[in-house]
Amino acid sequence: MANDTFTGWMTASQQAVETALETLLPDASRAPHVLHEAMRYSTLQGGKRVRPLLAIAAAELVDADAANVARVACAVEMIHAYSLVHDDMPCMDDDVLRRGKPTCHVQFDEATALLVGDALQTLAFELVASPLPGVAAAQQLAMVKLLAQASGHAGMAGGQAIDLASVGKPLSQPELEFMHLMKTGALIRASVLLGALCGQPLDAAQTEALDHFAKRMGLAFQVVDDVLDVEADTATLGKTAGKDAANDKPTYVSLMGLGEAKSYARDLYDDALAALAPFGSKAARLQQLAEYIVARSF
Amino acid sequence: MANDTFTGWMTASQQAVETALETLLPDASRAPHVLHEAMRYSTLQGGKRVRPLLAIAAAELVDADAANVARVACAVEMIHAYSLVHDDMPCMDDDVLRRGKPTCHVQFDEATALLVGDALQTLAFELVASPLPGVAAAQQLAMVKLLAQASGHAGMAGGQAIDLASVGKPLSQPELEFMHLMKTGALIRASVLLGALCGQPLDAAQTEALDHFAKRMGLAFQVVDDVLDVEADTATLGKTAGKDAANDKPTYVSLMGLGEAKSYARDLYDDALAALAPFGSKAARLQQLAEYIVARSF
Repeated sequence: MANDTFTGWMTASQQAVETALETLLPDASRAPHVLHEAMRYSTLQGGKRVRPLLAIAAAELVDADAANVARVACAVEMIHAYSLVHDDMPCMDDDVLRRGKPTCHVQFDEATALLVGDALQTLAFELVASPLPGVAAAQQLAMVKLLAQASGHAGMAGGQAIDLASVGKPLSQPELEFMHLMKTGALIRASVLLGALCGQPLDAAQTEALDHFAKRMGLAFQVVDDVLDVEADTATLGKTAGKDAANDKPTYVSLMGLGEAKSYARDLYDDALAALAPFGSKAARLQQLAEYIVARSF
Repeated sequence: MANDTFTGWMTASQQAVETALETLLPDASRAPHVLHEAMRYSTLQGGKRVRPLLAIAAAELVDADAANVARVACAVEMIHAYSLVHDDMPCMDDDVLRRGKPTCHVQFDEATALLVGDALQTLAFELVASPLPGVAAAQQLAMVKLLAQASGHAGMAGGQAIDLASVGKPLSQPELEFMHLMKTGALIRASVLLGALCGQPLDAAQTEALDHFAKRMGLAFQVVDDVLDVEADTATLGKTAGKDAANDKPTYVSLMGLGEAKSYARDLYDDALAALAPFGSKAARLQQLAEYIVARSF
């Protein structure tokens, strides 16, 4: 498929990410073998690579070097993969299926899954801290910090903690939004911003516009995820469907109803797209990608 | 106690680390409350702070800014604390006592312990990636990478994986050494090197000398730990004593015998001290600290 269609671009980008992950993940022939094999098992051949795609599309705004972008895209994917491995463990969501395969602790064991998550997180930071040709060290340091803030107690991990604490409790929409902004939104936002930091820096107004896009998409992504958890089946999702309701977890659908949730996703999408206007045609891939992410629920 | 004695210096340094940790750890009054409280519980008021002390002592070689050193010292301590929280979980060592208190998953729950470890790791990277006044961004980026390499699949997490895989298996001394160099040695080494990176860079010969000291101390620390696991009681250690033997884990003592292990610790210590010669009196604290760490087992 030609690279100038969106589908062609997406397939080529996903392939580039897969190739880069193959190289950047530790070789399973080197000790510790099981850990390395399990790190590869949990990261390779999985998912739609939404976060890497966002980073790659955002990097087009600044004409960033493809190798730099691929490395940073892999780092955000490793953070995402680590969070899935830990979230699936028995003490958390206790799930057996992920990306159409047995979860890491089922395929290996719990101790290995714990270490896989730990080591994937560390490797992500190692990748972003390894010099990116043409990117100023201070800018790169800011990238590490951004990734850390998006992933830690005030971001993804914190959102997960709120999610755990909220099982079986009624949440208001602002509370639900706060949780999702941290749990899913923070890393989605960071993926976009990190992509744009792989090249020459945007000016302040552009950074603000891109950040608005990124925040709206982070929220839209979660609303869509909640809709799909209700509407799609397990085979389509590659993970257990309907588990939010089964776990009595508050979602946009349980809070707003299905129709309202879909309409909210569209509003977020429209708002996100409007923020890209200043970038003109350079934002074409980001626009198409946003549509691809959100249109799944329309 | 005066700061010019070693004990005075150590007490003052431990207090400085405690104060810095108090500030740098997230406030338990902010959401997510339980996560923040558990992060503080697992990090504050615990242990001898050997890794922070090594960083602070090494920072004296380059007259580094005290606030910079405190932040970096807290980062290595957070990595260490995260590893303890995860190692203590039921799927790993399944331990109930740490630093004289119930372990994190006992005091809170397993899901919280998992997230505490995850978020402490992330926070460590955030701290090292936040600009240190007077330190070049490129040097700081190298600090982040060094910390990541010491903590990840080729360092601490990898050593833990080998340790798990080795339970009940006979290991040769080279195999045991390889495991410990990763599991404990890598972060001990990084603590020393990171301290020295908080100021103006050492030259290549000095860096090599310091690295030799750091590697020897990393190994010596583990040998001493194995000796103490046999010789000390639970109250003195503040963690369960004799658990290596109970878990049928290979140790320096099980491999070499107690007398040989003690003598090996002393040889490593002598070799480490010799490497500090080029630094003259600037290495006084590092020498005293090395003696303090290793003399526990003499």
